[in-house]
Amino acid sequence: MKDTLRDLSQYRLVQRLGVPRIPVLRRYAPGQPLLDGPALVGAVGKGGLVDDVRALLAEAGVAEAGEEGKVAAAVLDATAARTLDDLAAAREFLTPAVRRLAPSGRLVLLGPVGSADDVEAAAVAQAFEGLVRSAGKEVRAGATANLLVVAPDAGADALASTLRFFLSGRSAFVSGQVVRVGAPVGPVEPGDPAQPLAGRIVVVTGAARGIGEAIADTLHRDGATIVAVDVPAAGDALARVANRTGGTALQLDITAPDAPARLLAHLRERHGRVDVVVHNAGITRDKLLANMDADRWNAVLAVNLRSQLAINQALLADADLLGDSARIVCISSMSGIAGNRGQTNYAASKAGVIGMVRALAPQLAGRGATINAVAPGFIETAMTAKMPLATREAGRRVNSLRQGGLPVDVAEAVGWLAQAATAGVTGQAVRVDGQNMLGA
Amino acid sequence: MKDTLRDLSQYRLVQRLGVPRIPVLRRYAPGQPLLDGPALVGAVGKGGLVDDVRALLAEAGVAEAGEEGKVAAAVLDATAARTLDDLAAAREFLTPAVRRLAPSGRLVLLGPVGSADDVEAAAVAQAFEGLVRSAGKEVRAGATANLLVVAPDAGADALASTLRFFLSGRSAFVSGQVVRVGAPVGPVEPGDPAQPLAGRIVVVTGAARGIGEAIADTLHRDGATIVAVDVPAAGDALARVANRTGGTALQLDITAPDAPARLLAHLRERHGRVDVVVHNAGITRDKLLANMDADRWNAVLAVNLRSQLAINQALLADADLLGDSARIVCISSMSGIAGNRGQTNYAASKAGVIGMVRALAPQLAGRGATINAVAPGFIETAMTAKMPLATREAGRRVNSLRQGGLPVDVAEAVGWLAQAATAGVTGQAVRVDGQNMLGA
Repeated sequence: MKDTLRDLSQYRLVQRLGVPRIPVLRRYAPGQPLLDGPALVGAVGKGGLVDDVRALLAEAGVAEAGEEGKVAAAVLDATAARTLDDLAAAREFLTPAVRRLAPSGRLVLLGPVGSADDVEAAAVAQAFEGLVRSAGKEVRAGATANLLVVAPDAGADALASTLRFFLSGRSAFVSGQVVRVGAPVGPVEPGDPAQPLAGRIVVVTGAARGIGEAIADTLHRDGATIVAVDVPAAGDALARVANRTGGTALQLDITAPDAPARLLAHLRERHGRVDVVVHNAGITRDKLLANMDADRWNAVLAVNLRSQLAINQALLADADLLGDSARIVCISSMSGIAGNRGQTNYAASKAGVIGMVRALAPQLAGRGATINAVAPGFIETAMTAKMPLATREAGRRVNSLRQGGLPVDVAEAVGWLAQAATAGVTGQAVRVDGQNMLGA
Repeated sequence: MKDTLRDLSQYRLVQRLGVPRIPVLRRYAPGQPLLDGPALVGAVGKGGLVDDVRALLAEAGVAEAGEEGKVAAAVLDATAARTLDDLAAAREFLTPAVRRLAPSGRLVLLGPVGSADDVEAAAVAQAFEGLVRSAGKEVRAGATANLLVVAPDAGADALASTLRFFLSGRSAFVSGQVVRVGAPVGPVEPGDPAQPLAGRIVVVTGAARGIGEAIADTLHRDGATIVAVDVPAAGDALARVANRTGGTALQLDITAPDAPARLLAHLRERHGRVDVVVHNAGITRDKLLANMDADRWNAVLAVNLRSQLAINQALLADADLLGDSARIVCISSMSGIAGNRGQTNYAASKAGVIGMVRALAPQLAGRGATINAVAPGFIETAMTAKMPLATREAGRRVNSLRQGGLPVDVAEAVGWLAQAATAGVTGQAVRVDGQNMLGA
């Protein structure tokens, strides 16, 4: 009762602050078109990708926008930008484009990599980051702005799945992000955009509930067979997820010394291989550093980082269990990037995941595989539902989309990175946080 | 009157939110000891630098802390950390250390670089970032927490000026930062910690007022001769700064095509050389991207980025004007990292500065020179004094030190990077923002 009263008074305070209207985000549903309106396409200089962008849009049934009216997306190929004049030309395209952007519209910039030898080109490449991050804070009504930095040797095929993700409703809660698309780690097979994970065997740890459950459901919707892993205590919920997703359940404490061996044995015996590993299992044991004890520290590091290191090592040591175009996706956290009060252990573990991903990417590239991290911001889960109302409300609002994300938003990003077609993105951490204000 | 009333009602709202007490920061003054109390020193594994840290502290007259009582600083050499067990050992040192940290205390971690071959070591290296950024959000009463990532070939001499900066009152408004100290670009001459810029010829653009004026005054205090540059309209103020700092004044529109040539001619004729260039001049012309015009865009890019590119190019093209151990320091901005609503032009220019710095660093290293960016957060200036009260108050509070910085805080960071002794830090952007919550 006392808590409720405090919640109410806090809520009135939040209301006095004049909370703006919350936009409804367009989210993906099977059968939905890539965009629900025309797209504006432009290029700066001799952008080599603009024809490929047009072809991709045409194939998806998206019309090119005329001179006037709302647009569902604006895509600018600025990969050829080298000079401040090119940057100014990009601004000339963007100003009218932003004005025409429809609710839940998509501003996607394809940016240049920059150059070690050409200082102006390097400055311009980085300038696009400041531009897009600012634009993300300006666009309204559920629209997003993102920058795809495309290497000259990436090729249109390696870009396609990533461009589709950022245009579609699948990226509803991803804004203000910079993603690098490089040379693919192996042959790129386009696949079916409606079932991009068809035939893929996908392990999801912590799959019994929350974000893990959403990952299992979402990847299964896209064609994957799910190997659902969780602790024995979550057995019933785990079995339901596995049944629903046409896969198998494995009750496993991932911190046990024999966990990697047991997981690999399960995969070999039941599925013959594994295509995608999603390291999602994670725990929190919050405490200020001044009061942190070894148990809380070690428990969090063991589940969130050590288990991932051990499983990845076992996978790499195995000669043939990893399928072609294998993908590893690790759940990190905004806390791992920005740090968080009371979470030195959690933030260290989630930053460690990012370091692990960066170090493993070159090793995996040699096998045609990628590894990336997804860093969720404020996501509406059973955990956040337990927060005091004012804290929860504040957490929801401090991002450009002015709301919390849903578990499915994290799952969609995992699904994009899990595709065989996403062969040019590796070693990166992609935030799914509505462009949360908090950062390093 | 109407504005005053609105300000008042906004102020009451701010007060209702329960603003916590604002800590008073210990700032540097000549003659002040490095620390005003004992320091706790520790190491994880065979940290090769702990003896050097002890020697530096002893030379500065700092006592090593005993088993109990408050400490002015805690320094942990974790450069040897490779494993999660090493990380846990670091936590064991830090928990009691944080409890003992005095007001305006300093938590300085020396972290490992990580390794491309050792995945666990790479994860651990990155984990320290999450740990320190979280610790920065926890320490109280003006204390700071920073991570210096020290390369194995950096050496204790190259570390000294940076370690001194982060321990001293000079870094009052720098927290939650990660700075990399690498192999020095040239011979490291220790110099006099009380007059670290003695004999250096330092150009400061935009020196007539605000942050530029503070840079001129602060670097002069540390021994530098200042070449104060500003637009002709600021002539009187500029002359006062030049007189006060024992230097020369140059009235110059830095965006003019002949500006680099005129600046170089002034330096050659009046001073014979230049040791440090501080690119501080900058303007804002805020407008939402949807309403941005070419004039506003181009004006901001010309002053904030194009002029720096042109002057740097002229300096590099000149065979002998740059002195030994030359240093270039460019003022970027938090907006260049995080983006900012209404500032696509400013954020692009300030991000561009970071890209420029990164690209020029290898070129300058060949000449024994470094280039870095300083990115201020909310700094109390004539510009911020004009903000509406609630906006200003919010801007001040959204950082770990719960206050705005002062121009001198930016100047102190510039002074640190301007030292000949700071030869192992290059190509980086260091935020001076009290660990502002806003970030990319």
